[in-house]
Amino acid sequence: MSSLTQTACNKIFGGWQKIFTHDSSETKCKMTFGIYLPPQADDECKVPVIYWLSGLTCTEQNFVTKAGAQRYAAQHGIAIVAPDTSPRGCNIEGEDESYDFGSGAGFYVDATQEKWKTNYRMYSYITKELPDIVNANFPVLADKQSIMGHSMGGHGALTLFLKNPGMYQSVSAFAPICNPVQCAWGQKALAGYLGEDKEAWMDSDSCCLVKNYSGPTSDILIDQGQDDNFLSQGQLLPDNFLAACNSNNVPVILRMQEGYDHSYFFIATFIGEHIAHHAKYLK
Amino acid sequence: MSSLTQTACNKIFGGWQKIFTHDSSETKCKMTFGIYLPPQADDECKVPVIYWLSGLTCTEQNFVTKAGAQRYAAQHGIAIVAPDTSPRGCNIEGEDESYDFGSGAGFYVDATQEKWKTNYRMYSYITKELPDIVNANFPVLADKQSIMGHSMGGHGALTLFLKNPGMYQSVSAFAPICNPVQCAWGQKALAGYLGEDKEAWMDSDSCCLVKNYSGPTSDILIDQGQDDNFLSQGQLLPDNFLAACNSNNVPVILRMQEGYDHSYFFIATFIGEHIAHHAKYLK
Repeated sequence: MSSLTQTACNKIFGGWQKIFTHDSSETKCKMTFGIYLPPQADDECKVPVIYWLSGLTCTEQNFVTKAGAQRYAAQHGIAIVAPDTSPRGCNIEGEDESYDFGSGAGFYVDATQEKWKTNYRMYSYITKELPDIVNANFPVLADKQSIMGHSMGGHGALTLFLKNPGMYQSVSAFAPICNPVQCAWGQKALAGYLGEDKEAWMDSDSCCLVKNYSGPTSDILIDQGQDDNFLSQGQLLPDNFLAACNSNNVPVILRMQEGYDHSYFFIATFIGEHIAHHAKYLK
Repeated sequence: MSSLTQTACNKIFGGWQKIFTHDSSETKCKMTFGIYLPPQADDECKVPVIYWLSGLTCTEQNFVTKAGAQRYAAQHGIAIVAPDTSPRGCNIEGEDESYDFGSGAGFYVDATQEKWKTNYRMYSYITKELPDIVNANFPVLADKQSIMGHSMGGHGALTLFLKNPGMYQSVSAFAPICNPVQCAWGQKALAGYLGEDKEAWMDSDSCCLVKNYSGPTSDILIDQGQDDNFLSQGQLLPDNFLAACNSNNVPVILRMQEGYDHSYFFIATFIGEHIAHHAKYLK
């Protein structure tokens, strides 16, 4: 396993917000992640852990500095891991050209297309390499982990939860891209990373996955701002996910939040309730 | 009075975080400020207001996005105004050369030196023009205002409170530059804006001002991280302020916080207690 380099360490709400970089065997580049260790965590006491997946254009910094999650993580005694959203600096032609494809837009899939398949392996990075690193290096409980995310990261949280029954105790999302095969962001990303054959996309679409899900269930919590521009543009499609869950009797709570948009101001408002939701399943 | 242009408006914790720009008569340039209006504020209900002054290199964005103050402002029903720290884009030779002088480093004084005196009037901007604008345009109580700040902005909060007895109901600070006449940051800024005659600096130094203060008192609350690099470098000098307060029987609470540094992670941890402190005097 590659060694970790700590690049920042700040005390907040009695615990420690740390940033690490490491050479990733999955993405073949340097990756960065943030981890918040609450005051309860030490050599004698392992704590549950929630993985946070960020949205398009984000690095690990957006969540770490803007969400205000550390207060609630400290209150509940839960660690939070916030990885970067994609490989970077891979010298792939065009990797930095779009905000919604390439750098900052890994979409939490393992690419199959020649140009991207060596580095763009965010699915395997988040579900295998990163938890191995976190479990080996920090006082967290490997069998008590949950996942949440925002927008592209909400898509990531939902799909990773549904594709790995039992790996995560619970899942929640803020304004997730619920049905990427049906929206412009998703179609661009899935075609680019997985190719034009739409059959290959189904395995990375929450709506498709939940219809056939048969693993353990916990209430899936989703908050969606009613004044979110990307909702009205048809990029998020939460109603499709609600219908898909209902068709397979998977419990879901979709809360439409009046006046809220797609920003971290929205996330900051409800992150405390999401962490409390996960705490119910992690304790 | 110049008109306001709203450049952002986001719902957070039931209220609204807004950003405005306007042409300032004091600084002769475009200025920007953030204002958080809690859910209690509307046309029928005016609320108290706290002014937040930021530190070196900051704009209004640092506090608005990183401090997590909106949660507590909503809880207490208090507005928070967060102005930019300095004039910008004034076409003064060298204005953008240093992180600790010129743009981003207004130090909350009215400059007297020829090169700076037309624009660098942050003292008058914060104590006169900005509150006039805020009181005229938003549902706030003009006679219920307090002030707080961080680092250079902590210096600003303390000096503005002490120079204007009764204007602010209370004052607090995070890691303030307590004694600028005795530290490198202060000496550079005060010499640059006010000239080499050190007599002219005394009126912009909290330690000097508090020794002669005879206005209404409220407990001055100061939090200081013990692992703050700028504390060990002698830029902040909180002990000098404590001694100066004690010499004139001005009540002060200086809390040394173990393990905390100079960052917004430190501010986020204690901002709730600062807002609760001001709420005692504003209600």
